[in-house]
Parts: sequence; C-alpha cells; structure tokens
Amino acid sequence: MIHQHLEEADNEPIGWLNGPLLMDEEYLKSILTVSDEIKKRADVLVVIGIGGSYLGAKAVQEALSPYFKHHEKGIDVIYVGFNLSGAYMNQLIESLYDKEFYINVISKSGSTMESSLAFRVLRQYAEERYKEEAKNRIIVTTDPENSLLKVIAENNGYRKFDIPSNVGGRYSLLTSVGLLPIAVAGINICELLEGAKKAAIDLKDSSPEKNEAYRYAVIRHALYTKGYRIELLASFEPALTSIHEWWKQLFGESEGKNKKGLFPASVNYSTDLHSLGQFVQDGSPLLFETFLHFKEISDDYYIPYKTLNDDYLNFLSNRTFNEINSISKQGTVLAHAEGGVPIIQIEVDRLDAFHVGYVIYFFMKACAMSAYLLDVYPFDQPGVEAYKKKITQLLIEESIIH
Amino acid sequence: MIHQHLEEADNEPIGWLNGPLLMDEEYLKSILTVSDEIKKRADVLVVIGIGGSYLGAKAVQEALSPYFKHHEKGIDVIYVGFNLSGAYMNQLIESLYDKEFYINVISKSGSTMESSLAFRVLRQYAEERYKEEAKNRIIVTTDPENSLLKVIAENNGYRKFDIPSNVGGRYSLLTSVGLLPIAVAGINICELLEGAKKAAIDLKDSSPEKNEAYRYAVIRHALYTKGYRIELLASFEPALTSIHEWWKQLFGESEGKNKKGLFPASVNYSTDLHSLGQFVQDGSPLLFETFLHFKEISDDYYIPYKTLNDDYLNFLSNRTFNEINSISKQGTVLAHAEGGVPIIQIEVDRLDAFHVGYVIYFFMKACAMSAYLLDVYPFDQPGVEAYKKKITQLLIEESIIH
Repeated sequence: MIHQHLEEADNEPIGWLNGPLLMDEEYLKSILTVSDEIKKRADVLVVIGIGGSYLGAKAVQEALSPYFKHHEKGIDVIYVGFNLSGAYMNQLIESLYDKEFYINVISKSGSTMESSLAFRVLRQYAEERYKEEAKNRIIVTTDPENSLLKVIAENNGYRKFDIPSNVGGRYSLLTSVGLLPIAVAGINICELLEGAKKAAIDLKDSSPEKNEAYRYAVIRHALYTKGYRIELLASFEPALTSIHEWWKQLFGESEGKNKKGLFPASVNYSTDLHSLGQFVQDGSPLLFETFLHFKEISDDYYIPYKTLNDDYLNFLSNRTFNEINSISKQGTVLAHAEGGVPIIQIEVDRLDAFHVGYVIYFFMKACAMSAYLLDVYPFDQPGVEAYKKKITQLLIEESIIH
Repeated sequence: MIHQHLEEADNEPIGWLNGPLLMDEEYLKSILTVSDEIKKRADVLVVIGIGGSYLGAKAVQEALSPYFKHHEKGIDVIYVGFNLSGAYMNQLIESLYDKEFYINVISKSGSTMESSLAFRVLRQYAEERYKEEAKNRIIVTTDPENSLLKVIAENNGYRKFDIPSNVGGRYSLLTSVGLLPIAVAGINICELLEGAKKAAIDLKDSSPEKNEAYRYAVIRHALYTKGYRIELLASFEPALTSIHEWWKQLFGESEGKNKKGLFPASVNYSTDLHSLGQFVQDGSPLLFETFLHFKEISDDYYIPYKTLNDDYLNFLSNRTFNEINSISKQGTVLAHAEGGVPIIQIEVDRLDAFHVGYVIYFFMKACAMSAYLLDVYPFDQPGVEAYKKKITQLLIEESIIH
C-alpha cells in the first residue's frame, strides 16, 4: 500500500522516482555542453550551495576521484556557501586570484541565506575580474517557478538550469544540481545515470523479497521498532566519507520528525575501529551497523616482501592492501556480531560511476519507504525552518540596532 | 573522591595530567630541532599512525591552518597508515615521486597492523629513493620499553622519540606524538603547550563549581542519567571538523564500555543545520548538544554593499561573515532549546594555538572524570582488542591457505 502511495501520488514531490528513466536527452546534452565549456575555459568551478544543493555532488566527486591528484579529465570543483565562516570566504577569494573560474550557484528556493551571501560576494568578485564577460561565467541552478535566483538570472542574462519542481533538495542529486558539478570534475555522468536507471527498474517491485531497497527499509524499521536508535553507516574506503554525509542528510531530514527516527551516524573503518570501535563493540547498546561495501576497487598496492623480516609481516607479503582490507571487514563483522550488534550488509560490485549511481537511487527509494513505515512525511523539513526563522528575526533586530 | 583518585593514582596512565607542567625543556628542544631539519630538507612529512597516533595532530593542524593555502611557516603533513585502502596507498606513493620527504611513524605498541603495513611500504620506498641516507629521514615515535618499533629503530639507526609509558594513545596529543607533526606544519607548539599548562593549573580544583572540566563532566553525566544517549558536539567553524573527530575517539573509547556511555557524534554548523538540523530539532529525543565556540577568529570577510540590491541583502552589508555566523549560532541555540534539546556551551576566547592547547587539556580531564562518574575505567579499550583478534586469526588462516 505504501508502495502504491509512493509510486502513484501525483501531487507529491517524487520526480526523482522516475527521473533517471525519463531523463530528457536535450537537458543532459545541455549540461554536458556547459561542462565542456567550463573545463576548457576555467581552472576552477566554484559551486555555491548548502545541504542538498552540494552534498550529493561533493559525495560523488570524492567517491570517484583520486586521493592525491587532480582529475586528468576534469578541473577542480570547490564548494562555498555551505558555511558562514569569514576565514573560509576570505581565503577562498584569495585562492582565486591566480585562477580562471566559473560560478555555479545552486539553490532550490533561491533565497537560502548562506548561499545567497556567498553568491553576493562571488558575483561581485567575478564582475571585478571579468567585467562584462562575468555574466557568461555564472550558471544558476534553481526552481523554474518560485525562486528569487531565477529572477536574478533572467535580469542579468545568466544561464540557467532548472531543478524540477517535483524534486526536493535532498533527492536532487541526479538532476542538474549534481550532474553539472560532477561532470566538470571529470566523472562520466551518463554512466552515473545508467546505474540509477538500472536501479529504478530493479527496484520497482512492491515486495520487499524482490525489492532490495524495500528490504533495507523494512529491516531498519524492524530494528527501530525493537528499540535501536542509531544507525551507523560503515565503509572501509575513505573516499566514501562524503557519501556518508549525503546519506546522513537524506535519512536524517526525511525521518527525524515528530520525535521519531533513527539517528544517522557514520564511521570510516578501519580508521574508526581505533576510535568509535570500542563504543560499537561494548558501549550503550543503541546502535546497529550498515556496512556499505564496494567489492572491487580498481587501484591497489602490493605488500612487499622483505628479506630482513624485522616487522614479522612477510606472511602478508604479496597480498594486496585491498585484500587485507576485505579480511579486516570480515573480522569486524564477526567481532561486532559477537558483541551483539545487529549488522546489515549492502554489497556493491565495483566502485565506479555506474554503481555509485545505482547506490544513490537505492538509498533515495529506501529512504522514502522508511519514512512512510515510520509514519512521517519524507519530503518536508519543518524543523529546519525553525532555526531559519530565529536567525532571520535576530538578523533583522541586529540590523535595526546596527 | 574521584578527583583524588584521578590526581594521586601512582600506577595509572595519567602522565598526561601533569605532562604540560612537567614538560622537559630538552625533550621539547629536540622536537623543535628535528622539526626545523624536516622543514628545511623536505616538501612533505608523511605521518604513519592510526587512532590516537594521528587524530590529535591532524585536528590541531587543521584547526590552525589556512583553508586553501599551504603554511607559510611549515610544510605539508600528510597522513597514512590509518586505513587499509590500496588506492590510497598507491596514490600516496605516486604523489611522492617529485617530492622530498621524511617519515614519522607513530605507534605506542609498535605493532598495530595498519601502521606497520604502511611503514613497511614507506620504508622500502624511502630506501629505494634515498639509499643509505634513508635512515636519517625516518623518525620513530613509540614506547620506550615494550615496542617492536623501538627494536627496529635501534637496529636501523633511526632517530626515536619516546611516548611516556604512563600516557595512553588517546591522551598523547601533547607529547611527541602530536608535537612533532604539529611543529612541522608550522604551528607554534610552545604556545600550544602554554595553553595546556594554563588549563592544567586552572582545572586543578576538586569542586565542579570551580573546575570547568569537572562541571562539563558532571552536567553530561546528569543528562546521561536522565536518559539522553547521544552527545552532539557542534561548531560553527569548518576548521574544527578534525577536533570533533579527536573528541569522538577520546570520549567514545574512554566511556563506551560495559554497555554504557554517551554516543559521541558531531556536526558542523551551519552546514549541518541543512542536514542533521531537522533531526536535532524534531527527531527522536535522545540527544543533547555541546557547542564548542571560539569567539574570535582572526580572518574575516565583509559583506559588500550592492547598488542594485536585487538579492535584498543590503541590510547585512558592512557586517562581516563572522558576525553573521555568531548570530546564526545564537539563533540555533534558541531554536534547539525551544525544540527541547538540552544545550551545553563551551566558549573559548580565540582560535589560536594557546586556546586550542587549553581546550585539548580541558577535554582530556573532563573525559577521565566522566568515565569515572560512569564507573568505567577511562584508560583501556578492551573492545578494540576483540576485532584485532578476529582479524589476526583470519589473516593467519588465509595465509596458510594462500
């Protein structure tokens, strides 16, 4: 019944549900064209956004980028407007002095304070640097109907990408919100979308036995019902750190309502086995773990053989780090299970654009189902508005005194 | 009584308690001498460590470094051996091809698998690159008594810094473990230690009314007793992200025992107001927030005035980002308090080495007291050993089959 409600609700913001299947070729082509232009003409793309407007792009970019080198196929993408740090802003501007840049400002409502302030600064700096030509270097991604940013774009002749009106911020990764920055970073967004498309087909079944996203939703809901209150997303590859952050927003904002919901937390193993591992094994029994594991990772390193075996590690020589990492995962699952921690395992074949696209869609669908199981509405965030109101009020009072 | 137990226990690993006050001048000077040599002769210091052997140095380094530029006074410090990713290792080695480097391998026991494997790889690479001279470029930081690494250092003529035997990993930031990498990154470790020294004097009183570290410990314990199960450390400056990670290890590993303890989680505001903010405001009522706020941050940026006020933000012009950030903090405290979330506020004067040193000591002392209030022993981590055993067992089985 929830399945039907989710699939057939005409008035709900569920554009993301069939988004990958209905992706308009022209829309995709226009993103790729602008991305090519940016890569050719700039050293840096400055993305302005907060929450759902940047977490997804950053997550995919980091999951699929080298750890220590810049992309060969893309350019630097840096993010701003997701905080109010004056030091961050000042040093960002300084870092642009000797670089050519484009700006992509992303906001569904077009009036979020953090990104609006950053846009004011960056726009001014672009106009100083590029004069008349600045307007060709500013790309706006916003709602096609109700958005102040839309008006600003039209009045100034900035190019504009629409965020479909029926797709909310945290479900918008696979629209222009995520696709343009990800493409500029040199990642194949067609493969990313292919993966999401495959997921949209695979995960259509209404039965949790055949639908893995629903199965995940049902199991985590059962654990919630049993009294567990924290879900710990765990991975063994540090590149997935920002995928965890995206997941935390998706589930935390969708479910954390009416005094309900699993608190979403995350760990990077094996790092955090030497940190939160103690708590997981033996602390307050509130949490279960969800392992997100990509089985194949293309890059790897052999452990060398050493004639003088003074560290006693020759028994591991000629194994690779990724092999030991996999064994470390098995050991962790065994140890934590013995410690009484329930464990969900999500296994993905390979860390590449296709499979990341698949996983993104998987989590979005599982999240919507999870929220409905909890009897909360997955697509609003009334609690975020509470602090926004407080801040606006304080700012206005302050500015009168000022 | 706990206070006395903590201050006077001769056989406990509480060397950190008076460490800053008793810091040996020669020890400090030798760290500075080696740090100067590294800065002169290398582009990069590769620090090998996991858990308490790297989290503290990384935390202090990031808190006090520019966001977008390298240090003027230091060199790059990069970390390895805190994960088992083959991609990370391979790309790290590649990134060293065109750089001069030193290695600082840090391990209390001298036999933690992640760092031992990384050291094997880096040592081999250093010997290939630097031949005989390699041994001058490897610095070992380990226990002076029982440590395999100590034996390796002695047999190979590597320079060696001691980790005092009565200081455990997660309490070791203010020993050579943290001080050498932090100094190489260009941060004034004398000021850092001065701050810790001041804290060691200020926080000596046995009464929570006069001792702020104990007050923090008592309040968080009272909240635990009332049923709260998650402590969310919140800051408004993104540079503090790794301080949060260090704090999570400190409290999670010290308290998370015998099925007890507050789950330590963290948020970067205002970023996460657009992510976990919804959950904090209105999700499962399990958590309280601890705001760690540095009042003065030297670098800042003015919001410009715009003749064409098309974003309606002129009422904020000529205010700085840091001012707005402070107001945003006030608004958040008000909104979350109205949402029923208990809030602890830790206010620090300025984000600089002195005050970071103060805060580090503050948290260590508060943590030990917190664990005793919970009736758990703050200085061991039996749960970490559980997974270590499993992995060793699996690795030996695998290597026999292999």
